[in-house]
Amino acid sequence: MGPLATAHFYRMLIELTPACADQEHLPVAIWADPRVPDRTAALMDGGASPVPSLVAGARWLQAAGAELIAVPCNTAHAYLPEVRRQSGAEFLDLPTAAIATALAWQPKRLGLLATRGTRQALIYEQAAAPYGIEICNVTESAQRTLVDTAIAAVKSGAGRSIATRLVTRAVCELVAGGAEVIIGGCTEIPLVASEARTVAPVIDSAASLAAAALERMSFRSPPPAV
Amino acid sequence: MGPLATAHFYRMLIELTPACADQEHLPVAIWADPRVPDRTAALMDGGASPVPSLVAGARWLQAAGAELIAVPCNTAHAYLPEVRRQSGAEFLDLPTAAIATALAWQPKRLGLLATRGTRQALIYEQAAAPYGIEICNVTESAQRTLVDTAIAAVKSGAGRSIATRLVTRAVCELVAGGAEVIIGGCTEIPLVASEARTVAPVIDSAASLAAAALERMSFRSPPPAV
Repeated sequence: MGPLATAHFYRMLIELTPACADQEHLPVAIWADPRVPDRTAALMDGGASPVPSLVAGARWLQAAGAELIAVPCNTAHAYLPEVRRQSGAEFLDLPTAAIATALAWQPKRLGLLATRGTRQALIYEQAAAPYGIEICNVTESAQRTLVDTAIAAVKSGAGRSIATRLVTRAVCELVAGGAEVIIGGCTEIPLVASEARTVAPVIDSAASLAAAALERMSFRSPPPAV
Repeated sequence: MGPLATAHFYRMLIELTPACADQEHLPVAIWADPRVPDRTAALMDGGASPVPSLVAGARWLQAAGAELIAVPCNTAHAYLPEVRRQSGAEFLDLPTAAIATALAWQPKRLGLLATRGTRQALIYEQAAAPYGIEICNVTESAQRTLVDTAIAAVKSGAGRSIATRLVTRAVCELVAGGAEVIIGGCTEIPLVASEARTVAPVIDSAASLAAAALERMSFRSPPPAV
């Protein structure tokens, strides 16, 4: 849904594929309609629901022959059960894929950088619960001044260097609070996490999703770099 | 058709869009089926024709509501007149877009780095003819040891640093032969042209195509960086 995040996911899918020629890559159809209503606005402020758009997209991908759908937007996962019910399509679960990547560190506490919508829907808390892993969030002040601002800066295409600094500060706050590994739980976050990775591992949830897609489609790939 | 080239084109389309939020970007559908038969093998060695696959892709994009189709593969343009005839779809012309970018330098001689298929089909010679611009090609030896090898290395995902060196050497040969500006006339070439750009401008034909798509869809963007 975020165009840059979608492009990044597609690139990760290609990079993680052990192919030696074009013809060995997965056939992919991408439905990138940025007019889908804002997911966080729908969850937090009663904005227009993204469900009708997402169902239309799923149906279009099904018509294209898609066996499996990956949605590289964490916040949209709050709506996927309903989209799955209406479309009958099979979806990968992004939070589950990201948590699976995090398990390599055997963490007790994961820091989460995500939209307010993802936090409110407890998407990562639910995915982490089976492993007894605690999810730590940034403070309300840091959410507003660091995380929300960084995500908006990436989406606007204008302020990637500023966003990089903001994400680093947010990661420092989470690490100070006891988080061992950070989940880049909004697909815009990994695009500006290079500096933050000098502080702690920051899991690229889009790369985890790409690895899960390849696994499911029977390509074996090494675990994605964080 | 080359997956990395497709991902790069999509990224260029996003980066060149003057949008401040997701919702201001173009809706995009991508049909990325790497099983399309090799275009150069079809043109040079009587391999399977890519036309049926390309027509199927065009029809699928039309069904998705696409008003305009961009094909970020130069060699495929040898087949587009037939695909256009069979599908009725509207296609942008990649060589024309790349030549339009090159005009900024007012060149007399353009160096071309492309597949054997693109060379054989005289795609760039035809696009440059209305401007009285001459197209220079590398020698047969350089085509084999530098250009073909670099393109295959990018497509295999294994040798991007080697490919970078090979492209630089090919650009040096073209410049020594009098070329003032180089056309990265295979969409894999710009992915490994960073070093070559210290020798001469290397036009990213995928970025030119993205700019042409935005222009046609009424987004005004600055000319793409070479």
